[in-house]
Amino acid sequence: MNSLSPCEPAIAIPTFADIEDAALRLKGQAVRTPLLESPLLNRRVGGRLLIKSEVLQRTGSFKFRGAYNHISRLDAGQIKAGIVAYSSGNHAQGVAAAAEIVGAPATIIMPSDAPALKIANTKSYGAEVLTYDRYHQDRETIGAEMAAETGASLVRPYDDAWVIAGQGTVGLEITEQCAELGIAPDAVLSPAGGGGLIAGTSLALEARSPATKLYACEPEGFDDHRRSLEAGDRTANDDGPKSFCDALLASIPGEMTFAINRDRLAGGFAVSDEEVAAAMAIAFTDLKIVVEPGGAVALAAALAGRIKTRDRTTVVVTSGGNVDPVLFDQVLRNAG
Amino acid sequence: MNSLSPCEPAIAIPTFADIEDAALRLKGQAVRTPLLESPLLNRRVGGRLLIKSEVLQRTGSFKFRGAYNHISRLDAGQIKAGIVAYSSGNHAQGVAAAAEIVGAPATIIMPSDAPALKIANTKSYGAEVLTYDRYHQDRETIGAEMAAETGASLVRPYDDAWVIAGQGTVGLEITEQCAELGIAPDAVLSPAGGGGLIAGTSLALEARSPATKLYACEPEGFDDHRRSLEAGDRTANDDGPKSFCDALLASIPGEMTFAINRDRLAGGFAVSDEEVAAAMAIAFTDLKIVVEPGGAVALAAALAGRIKTRDRTTVVVTSGGNVDPVLFDQVLRNAG
Repeated sequence: MNSLSPCEPAIAIPTFADIEDAALRLKGQAVRTPLLESPLLNRRVGGRLLIKSEVLQRTGSFKFRGAYNHISRLDAGQIKAGIVAYSSGNHAQGVAAAAEIVGAPATIIMPSDAPALKIANTKSYGAEVLTYDRYHQDRETIGAEMAAETGASLVRPYDDAWVIAGQGTVGLEITEQCAELGIAPDAVLSPAGGGGLIAGTSLALEARSPATKLYACEPEGFDDHRRSLEAGDRTANDDGPKSFCDALLASIPGEMTFAINRDRLAGGFAVSDEEVAAAMAIAFTDLKIVVEPGGAVALAAALAGRIKTRDRTTVVVTSGGNVDPVLFDQVLRNAG
Repeated sequence: MNSLSPCEPAIAIPTFADIEDAALRLKGQAVRTPLLESPLLNRRVGGRLLIKSEVLQRTGSFKFRGAYNHISRLDAGQIKAGIVAYSSGNHAQGVAAAAEIVGAPATIIMPSDAPALKIANTKSYGAEVLTYDRYHQDRETIGAEMAAETGASLVRPYDDAWVIAGQGTVGLEITEQCAELGIAPDAVLSPAGGGGLIAGTSLALEARSPATKLYACEPEGFDDHRRSLEAGDRTANDDGPKSFCDALLASIPGEMTFAINRDRLAGGFAVSDEEVAAAMAIAFTDLKIVVEPGGAVALAAALAGRIKTRDRTTVVVTSGGNVDPVLFDQVLRNAG
């Protein structure tokens, strides 16, 4: 386990004004995803559970928000030079879809064991996909070298102010949609991989719903946010653990994201793959939405009782739904 | 095949004002379900496909709208006397959930071969479920006798003005949501069983989007609306055909619903179970929503090319998502 000292990011962290600006830019491009509610689900937890359903976002995850917020700001020369990104699969699709909209060629570096659906969808937006060996090659090095060689813009998956501001529109919408319902949530639970979604969300909550507590949810063995928050320092995961939450296998919180999250999150929860699978099955039966493993960790934390939900209002972010049918079958069959 | 002469319904058919009134009543109780759009799906059909996602409605289908619009109007004496309904499963859940909200005891008569999920959910709302043999017993007789004996209110699944007006809020929302997008759809495709959803929708489109053509979509062998519209008369299905679209097996269009639909629909389309299964799989991969067989017939008709979608804007209603996991597994596996 490595404990690294926190360091200031090279570029300024985004502000709430950047999130409001991103929201304007995303209008008409991104989906204002619904805050779903199910009486059956409420009954399970004894309180009110509101599900921010980013599975219904363009490209099937929240990642389109940050990618489009960055890529739509590039000038004509940058667009012509193209875009490079590395991603386990959801940022890949977000970048590919945003690049297609602005007409930029995109090259995406993905792990060779990424879900087939994520690779196929990324290609379907016209991007070129290069695969690498997740266990023996470093994607950040490959991406930086390629950007340096070709002059392409590198769009990082989380340590990027525009990306974080774009993801923060999830949090902004949560506060708006809760206000429309006349409620202020006691807690928001969000998945955390590199930490961009929850960092942006934390800035939105700080500005608009400061009494709401925000928690990072992660797979067991990949709970680097939970442990980093406890330590007050970025703390890497041990080598060794496996999880089927392919979207959340980053080894350590991002520098820029942790600089935001360190003082704004209330803590973190780790959930087992079995708890995640149960949450995916309940999303199927009670909510009628398709949630991928990494997208279901926050719902799993709420359903597994990691936080008091009785007589409380809890918002859960389901962050993505790009799951292969074969895996989804297995999850439903084992839960049945 | 029976050809029955159309007859005037015993009670007046609803008007557009009844739909507007239902919308006010449903506010805060029913979900204003999103009109989803997927670039991947648009690419498949060469045009713009907007998915009115009633799978995200309370109880997992549009049926809550009509049931609540009826049941919330009962007086204290009627509530005490209770509610009786017969249903293949989605109306059952809608009635049970609405009855629970107003505090009325509910007895629901369901076919013994209804999906297990639909029976379990109906019971979970506190309703008593009685099963009957769909092939040898008549549910309408059982329901009418029970209502007469007990003094309970019978809430019919489609031949009921309040139920039709409630379902019509689906059509009203489609016109509002299209107006928000600045578009007028060329066509709306809706599933049709007894015809309540499409009847209500036709009244809303007539008032708010009269140039939009509305089509009934049904399983092959159960295309009684398609054939009734061609004949100008209510025409029953032949005995014999089977379909896995359990929600759409009514044998003949309703009297009241057909009195509305006869002059307002542009026609009908029949789709095979294979086409429905393919549509369910595409809803899974491209939209991340769970659609049951009967809920997917309109999407199937659009994807199978029953209507010109190229360079057009087509709204498709996915009407329900209450499908057993085992069946959903089979559908995904066969489509893979």
